[in-house]
Amino acid sequence: MAKRTEISTLGEFGLIDHLTEGLTAVNASTLRGVGDDCAVLNYPASDVLVTSDMLMEGIHFDLVYTPLRHLGYKAAMVNLSDVYAMNGTPRQLIVNLALSRRFSVEDMDELYDGIRMACERHHVDIVGGDTTSSLTGLAISITCIGEARREDIVYRNGARDTDLICVSGNLGAAYMGLQLMEREKAVFESMKPNAGEPAQPDFSGREYLLERLLKPEARRDIVEALRAAGIRPTAMMDISDGLSSELMHICKQSGTGCRVYEERIPLDYQTAVTAEEFNMNVTTCALNGGDDYELLFTVPLTDHERVSQLEDVKVIGHITKPELGCALVARDGQEFELKAQGWNPLAE
Amino acid sequence: MAKRTEISTLGEFGLIDHLTEGLTAVNASTLRGVGDDCAVLNYPASDVLVTSDMLMEGIHFDLVYTPLRHLGYKAAMVNLSDVYAMNGTPRQLIVNLALSRRFSVEDMDELYDGIRMACERHHVDIVGGDTTSSLTGLAISITCIGEARREDIVYRNGARDTDLICVSGNLGAAYMGLQLMEREKAVFESMKPNAGEPAQPDFSGREYLLERLLKPEARRDIVEALRAAGIRPTAMMDISDGLSSELMHICKQSGTGCRVYEERIPLDYQTAVTAEEFNMNVTTCALNGGDDYELLFTVPLTDHERVSQLEDVKVIGHITKPELGCALVARDGQEFELKAQGWNPLAE
Repeated sequence: MAKRTEISTLGEFGLIDHLTEGLTAVNASTLRGVGDDCAVLNYPASDVLVTSDMLMEGIHFDLVYTPLRHLGYKAAMVNLSDVYAMNGTPRQLIVNLALSRRFSVEDMDELYDGIRMACERHHVDIVGGDTTSSLTGLAISITCIGEARREDIVYRNGARDTDLICVSGNLGAAYMGLQLMEREKAVFESMKPNAGEPAQPDFSGREYLLERLLKPEARRDIVEALRAAGIRPTAMMDISDGLSSELMHICKQSGTGCRVYEERIPLDYQTAVTAEEFNMNVTTCALNGGDDYELLFTVPLTDHERVSQLEDVKVIGHITKPELGCALVARDGQEFELKAQGWNPLAE
Repeated sequence: MAKRTEISTLGEFGLIDHLTEGLTAVNASTLRGVGDDCAVLNYPASDVLVTSDMLMEGIHFDLVYTPLRHLGYKAAMVNLSDVYAMNGTPRQLIVNLALSRRFSVEDMDELYDGIRMACERHHVDIVGGDTTSSLTGLAISITCIGEARREDIVYRNGARDTDLICVSGNLGAAYMGLQLMEREKAVFESMKPNAGEPAQPDFSGREYLLERLLKPEARRDIVEALRAAGIRPTAMMDISDGLSSELMHICKQSGTGCRVYEERIPLDYQTAVTAEEFNMNVTTCALNGGDDYELLFTVPLTDHERVSQLEDVKVIGHITKPELGCALVARDGQEFELKAQGWNPLAE
């Protein structure tokens, strides 16, 4: 039995002191971190990027199959990903937590360890936050602050007719990881109470899908590779809700249409195998699955050669005039209008 | 019956578009607001202040007696207050909301109206946020970004022996407002189901206490008055958890002790009357009540005359050497050690 220390033994300030113990700033822009009414930062020579995301238990994560350490890592990573998606560099993180009594100090240590691990990997300072209680469940709200030179910032609205549409990595894997986890959870829950210890689920060969779901990596490497290659994307965003939904954001804000070729959408082998096993269309999973945190970006047609040489980047289509709409070109040449069926937490 | 539009009819992006419609930035530091992966800000000549707070239904607010418009206003205000407490100027706000299905679009309009009203009053731009769902209840996480010239920033750790301790406004009123509301709620809940419409609670003469609870005002006026008078506090923070708790933060971080005089703690007449009615010690309410959002600050002894002339500011004691500890001097001259009995959301 793991040790359990009630959070009430520390209180709010005790818990904050405990969780933030030993934090030292690594960025020159961090003047003052945790411990006052505000954090104090300094950005004299670049623009300041700010993004914030909220993760709610039962909506965004299921603690039945999400280790708290992974959850912390992911909660930080999705915010870092937003800063990279502006072509910026993340520098500071603010962590707000609300937790019910079922969580112990050890639980929070796990969660915070994951957050700290993500921050260390990306040289980001934790500079503040609020820790409070909730009636039920765990709520995490993270704010990330970063920087970029003004001329480097890439918005969603800069795509132009004939630009190439590119994605990093592969798509749909996190969604298939989620299907695997949900299936195992259902098996587990349907077991009779006296059936003894459940068999350990066998995920062998599927580890990649679970890792994509539980431990996504913000694509700093892609942003750096683009910079090194002298490619400045015309538009960029990260894929959190699904390729289809994000493409439509870029096209709507840029006032363009697009053509994406089904055969060019990058898929991992395990994603395809598992989709088949679940009787799902793998293209639909890749288009609408979400939670991949890959980068979607457009580059001028003149960058075709340079972008084609980048590792782990694939050209999947091109931007068109707005009157052509947004469409997927299937393997047989048929065109289907793209729809934003991405994950929508506020839909029925 | 008020109109009720289900949030699912708009979806996440529809709701965000609806809530942020017509927002226009008033600050030069706001380069890009809502609508991309990050907001883009610019602070070339000052330091950047960032603070974030989380408010959870059932913990920080009770919607039985808190109108959503007031809740929005307060949620914004408590963050602005943190920026003023650094002697800074708030500029941008990021609003994260998680809501259960019991909330309608009209409810969110009310909440957002309150947030927008607070922002308009303080010339703050809403530049982003996340809107998502929760299994139960409403969660609000707000981040405020502000600025200050480096030489103007006031931390908690600058108090020195012999400094004067000052507070703005009066204390304990929000806490007595809370007692009134809780009493009415208990009366309401104990009524028999068939007793008909409950009598409208009579709060006449107590409006000030309710306003202090439901619609606190961040004390920009005090920060401006100090600046106009040429007074630079040595330490400052806002009183959210209670005078006693905040004083101990300043003394701990400054490495000092303090003496606060009971007879000097500013109280409103209604606070005193209501405390008596509830058989509560009014000094205890003022020391530990919290939620007042007044400013607590220290100034050098040489500023005594200047600070005494400020409207709505009262000198309540002085900073001492650390070995003297933190104490309240009662009306009869007896000393009591201060304890941080302030509101602690993580205590049992």
